[in-house]
Amino acid sequence: MMEWEMIRERLDGLLASGRHGELRGALRMINEVDIAQYMEEMDREKLLLIFRVLPKDISADVFSYMSTEQQQVLIESIGDHEIRTLIDDMFLDDAVDFLEELPAGVVRRVLRNTNAETRELINQYLQYPESSAGSIMTIEYMEFHAGDTVEKAMEKIRQEGLDKETIYTLYILDQGRHLMGTLALRKMILAEKDAVLSEMMDPNPISVCTTDDQEEVADLARRYDLMAIPVVDKENRMVGIITADDLMDVIEEENTEDFEKMAALTPSADEYLKTSPFRLALNRVPWLLIMAAIAIFTGMIIDSYEGLLKNASIVLTSCIPMLMNTGGNCGSQASTLIIRGIALGEIAFKDIFKAVWKELRVGAMVGVVLFGFTFLLVYFIYHATLDVALVVALALYCTVLIAKSLGCILPLCAKKVGFDPALMASPLITTIVDATSLTIYFAIATAILQIAPV
Amino acid sequence: MMEWEMIRERLDGLLASGRHGELRGALRMINEVDIAQYMEEMDREKLLLIFRVLPKDISADVFSYMSTEQQQVLIESIGDHEIRTLIDDMFLDDAVDFLEELPAGVVRRVLRNTNAETRELINQYLQYPESSAGSIMTIEYMEFHAGDTVEKAMEKIRQEGLDKETIYTLYILDQGRHLMGTLALRKMILAEKDAVLSEMMDPNPISVCTTDDQEEVADLARRYDLMAIPVVDKENRMVGIITADDLMDVIEEENTEDFEKMAALTPSADEYLKTSPFRLALNRVPWLLIMAAIAIFTGMIIDSYEGLLKNASIVLTSCIPMLMNTGGNCGSQASTLIIRGIALGEIAFKDIFKAVWKELRVGAMVGVVLFGFTFLLVYFIYHATLDVALVVALALYCTVLIAKSLGCILPLCAKKVGFDPALMASPLITTIVDATSLTIYFAIATAILQIAPV
Repeated sequence: MMEWEMIRERLDGLLASGRHGELRGALRMINEVDIAQYMEEMDREKLLLIFRVLPKDISADVFSYMSTEQQQVLIESIGDHEIRTLIDDMFLDDAVDFLEELPAGVVRRVLRNTNAETRELINQYLQYPESSAGSIMTIEYMEFHAGDTVEKAMEKIRQEGLDKETIYTLYILDQGRHLMGTLALRKMILAEKDAVLSEMMDPNPISVCTTDDQEEVADLARRYDLMAIPVVDKENRMVGIITADDLMDVIEEENTEDFEKMAALTPSADEYLKTSPFRLALNRVPWLLIMAAIAIFTGMIIDSYEGLLKNASIVLTSCIPMLMNTGGNCGSQASTLIIRGIALGEIAFKDIFKAVWKELRVGAMVGVVLFGFTFLLVYFIYHATLDVALVVALALYCTVLIAKSLGCILPLCAKKVGFDPALMASPLITTIVDATSLTIYFAIATAILQIAPV
Repeated sequence: MMEWEMIRERLDGLLASGRHGELRGALRMINEVDIAQYMEEMDREKLLLIFRVLPKDISADVFSYMSTEQQQVLIESIGDHEIRTLIDDMFLDDAVDFLEELPAGVVRRVLRNTNAETRELINQYLQYPESSAGSIMTIEYMEFHAGDTVEKAMEKIRQEGLDKETIYTLYILDQGRHLMGTLALRKMILAEKDAVLSEMMDPNPISVCTTDDQEEVADLARRYDLMAIPVVDKENRMVGIITADDLMDVIEEENTEDFEKMAALTPSADEYLKTSPFRLALNRVPWLLIMAAIAIFTGMIIDSYEGLLKNASIVLTSCIPMLMNTGGNCGSQASTLIIRGIALGEIAFKDIFKAVWKELRVGAMVGVVLFGFTFLLVYFIYHATLDVALVVALALYCTVLIAKSLGCILPLCAKKVGFDPALMASPLITTIVDATSLTIYFAIATAILQIAPV
């Protein structure tokens, strides 16, 4: 394969010289995803030109890989007839994805130009809640009757197979369109011609409901190593399938959401570089305000130990960043592992005692190392007295134990009461641990150094 | 489907009563993954019993879904002949996964009991670097010669298809076993019997090399919506395939690694509840020490402003947690979005100016809100003087701008020089921002309040 930059240059050359036949031939050699990428930064005129040059059998595919912005530019430039062909050629789930992002006026124009059957299907799709199984499924699957023979089924595949997203699993329905079972194509290929499908099928296929969350679907597929999952409605009537390649995107999307929540951001499905600064600021400000407010109250703890801080060594104040920082880091380490374990289904609320006991032991070990390390650093680098170094190291030890326990308890409790455990990540844990560690710190300092707090 | 608890009870009942025939029948109704789960907490005796009762055609599958601990218990309990059957029935990649986790002594016993051909393949597999395409591929794919006709190919599928992981893509090789092209089974099914494969195949299939990183393979599959990717060696000779269901696990694994790195943890592939506290402590301590050391030096900034802090209002000290906390949070918000963008291929180093410019604008907006908020809080809640409130609010504004910029610059630079951007997440950014924000804070305080630092 040539380098991408060379391909680009060559296409640019063909485009500029107007040799459309050759350009079409060149485009045939390139993956649809890459063609869409190539068209990403074109202006309206070039975009329209290259779209018209595209081989007809791949133009719908290329279109479905284009960005929403470019799709909209193109839709506004082409005629009604072209829109109709385009939508009819697209897989229904791709068409819906595309329509969901368009302004209402453009959607109406597109829908006016599709045939009645497609329009009805699209409208039905558009009603599934966001991130539900219904919203990501495709209806391009192969369905058969329980009484069909292998010969009849093969004939149907030959006639309809090319239009379907996957023909590798056959879905077997009864008269009422209820899902009765599934059958792998490879199993059928090996069977006698007059064998009946219902005798070979798996009568207990794993399926999901249209309203199930896409994350659950991905978890199922991952757990059972499935390449496709059938989707049924509330009455167990088959309505679509979801394929593994689409679920890879779901997994990345859900992970991105967790990463964002764990950094105290309101999750957003938009790409970073395409999101406006105002929208980014809006996703961040509420959390920052909440945590700044908590931190202001944490500051009050310092406020109430004014006497201690003004009369004791400045080292006590100097160690505050280290104490807060280490406490926060210990808490995030624990909470990240627990949140991730919950997300992957490895840890549940019932494991809370096991997890806390584990974190306490981890904390005890980590604490000992940090105790020695800070004691020496504070004593030798800050030239503190032995009792001050002891106060700092002791407070740190307690902070580590508490941070580890909270990092483990808070996400599990959040899950238990129905909140997203990801909210209990680094920023919140850090803020909570700050308050706790300062309280302990000053209590220990008051006790050992025997200086009045105020 | 019955509830899982009921299934469990029923199986327990059948197991206890010794009705093995019925138990075998009941097990036939349950997915292999769930059977493995059911066997997870059994002792050696029960485990062995249920394994012997398992229908022979699914026992290798069930085995490959069991945990390493249980696999080892079982391997140590069964005879050489049983081991041989088991390994021969497993898909090769599953067998290798299982062997990789076993102690060397057990591996030798297992290998002694496999046939020469399998042994050689396994040994070859075991040499691929961890997390490489070679280590996760399967060799159970269908290969054909370029000159084969559709009829001959169908005959081959009928004979060998059931043993293969996927027969839905045909891989077409030349005499030297070089990958020439791929052909979708559905395309072949629709073709004439005497059509030649090489005329229908896609001559430019996307493939990966055995040494490529598994993350790159997953990215390719996600980008091009692929259900399987062929794996070739350095001479473009076909050696295996990787299927989308396995790539879902890769994606989760890589994400877990990122989550762990971003929380300053040494990544580990083990489940949390199965990892010893000592190992957990070991994964955490180095990072905590590094950051505690940095924080100790941050504390020196406070140390050098002893005069300022002792002579000015205690409010200056009380606001340190809020300042550090907010700065850290602002930095993590930015760095998380950038790190995630890099991981998903949406942001590259060349976008650094675009990203910094965006973060500066976001910072300016977020900063204004936080400025007003803290000014009021400090003035009314801490009853500070106007100039102290101004110092705090102004320092916070600068901190936000710097935190946002650093959160965006550091991950991109890390990527540029070949480090993992995930290391530049919350903990490190927080630690770096702490030092910066304190420096600014005291500089502003000294200037506005006109108190000598020492």
